[in-house]
Amino acid sequence: LRHLFLGAEGTLGIITAAVLKLFPRPRSVETAFVGLSSPHGALALFNLANERAGGTVTGFELIPRIGLEFAVKHAPGCRDPLSGPHPWYVLIELSSQTWEGLRRTIEEILAAGVEQGLVRDATIAASLDHAKAFWLLRHHIAGTQKYEGGSIKHDVSVPVAAVPDFIVEASAKVEAMIAGCRPCPFGHLGDGNVHFNISQPLSGDRSQFLARWDEVNAAVFAIVERYGGSISAEHGIGVMKRELLARVKDPVALALMRSLKRELDPNGILNPGKVL
Amino acid sequence: LRHLFLGAEGTLGIITAAVLKLFPRPRSVETAFVGLSSPHGALALFNLANERAGGTVTGFELIPRIGLEFAVKHAPGCRDPLSGPHPWYVLIELSSQTWEGLRRTIEEILAAGVEQGLVRDATIAASLDHAKAFWLLRHHIAGTQKYEGGSIKHDVSVPVAAVPDFIVEASAKVEAMIAGCRPCPFGHLGDGNVHFNISQPLSGDRSQFLARWDEVNAAVFAIVERYGGSISAEHGIGVMKRELLARVKDPVALALMRSLKRELDPNGILNPGKVL
Repeated sequence: LRHLFLGAEGTLGIITAAVLKLFPRPRSVETAFVGLSSPHGALALFNLANERAGGTVTGFELIPRIGLEFAVKHAPGCRDPLSGPHPWYVLIELSSQTWEGLRRTIEEILAAGVEQGLVRDATIAASLDHAKAFWLLRHHIAGTQKYEGGSIKHDVSVPVAAVPDFIVEASAKVEAMIAGCRPCPFGHLGDGNVHFNISQPLSGDRSQFLARWDEVNAAVFAIVERYGGSISAEHGIGVMKRELLARVKDPVALALMRSLKRELDPNGILNPGKVL
Repeated sequence: LRHLFLGAEGTLGIITAAVLKLFPRPRSVETAFVGLSSPHGALALFNLANERAGGTVTGFELIPRIGLEFAVKHAPGCRDPLSGPHPWYVLIELSSQTWEGLRRTIEEILAAGVEQGLVRDATIAASLDHAKAFWLLRHHIAGTQKYEGGSIKHDVSVPVAAVPDFIVEASAKVEAMIAGCRPCPFGHLGDGNVHFNISQPLSGDRSQFLARWDEVNAAVFAIVERYGGSISAEHGIGVMKRELLARVKDPVALALMRSLKRELDPNGILNPGKVL
């Protein structure tokens, strides 16, 4: 039942016991912050990293320039790790239980990325504090958007190979809908999970912008659907996306979800009102 | 539905499409054949390997001396990779996308195993053919049992940490039940999956031995249950274990399985007669 319960948000049952599989703490972690030209370059670098260090790639976070600017501007202690500006960034983390060789591996990946014209600039964390600073920057992207006015958010996923096209297409779409709006798509490239957030135009009205939430959602979700993606990647359905789910989900799948819900919770007492 | 369908043997639905996630072929593989004193030593070595090379341990097969003898005696081309006899063996395989360092890692694991008194002898494959010969030996254990008369088989799993105790206890139990029977427990230690097979006594009667199948099953399954294991690890329930399942499975779990089956296959047309 494990996968059935993932994302069910407590509507199918209550977890009363769990077995944990423990893994040793990695002995070696290397973290790099990389400047790139495009999300397509980021995907090519992701494939390169997997080819050379598959299994050790424990983080591959895509960040747009605007996301870095938000964090640097509004979050105390955040600074740009690279000397010049770049349109896109990735934060790469490699971890391994073996205690050497990772530094050389990440250097080789970045060198190959430079040779292939993917990497514009890069820095490898020289200390744990240095690595923490990269992650701090990444973590502050979502939170600092609020200082830039209203933002319309999407937590979507598409196949990993489709992430760059999705970002380009969805950004063009929302920019055409709302002149001056500022897309800030970031997230877990290796999982195909994009937080497609859009900040309001610089001098626009907040409530006027937010009033277009549903319309923008619909436009973005239409693109997600075309790529065979999901409108809810890691943040669940809950109440907010419950009605949306009914619109995007295949009727057969939805009927099956309903019948499983009925079977496992005939009295409808488990987290009522959520998901379905 | 992915996990729900695993092990359902086509009784819940038909797979009409699948998405494959591809991984690059490992660039570096190291294979070792190791002689040990006991299954407890094998578990300690498994933990040591995971601690030093977690994520690269792609094979960890436990083999008893009798299993090696069966293969060497009856399978053409099988030979003992070590010069002297040992009570137990493991076949270790490490694989990595990074293209160096693995040889040193496996050497360090084995050296630590020797220092800790776990490893009696070991050999690392010097070529692909050499590694293939190790695996050939492993693959011939099950097949060559037939040349040793009847065998009573179990495909069970217990928590990884309980495998050694299970093997010792179950072997003692069946040896007490049938004097001279020859337990040959082997399998995937890292998954907790033991093929607990028992060959008949050397000079005994085949049909007399096999007549005790159900009785031996019941005794072994009782020990499996005590360790919180499963009577069907990787070979499924099918028809053969259908009645057994009803006996060992929690009634609530069984009722849930039945209701999911009814819901997904109301007319009972999907692989009828299997599992439930």
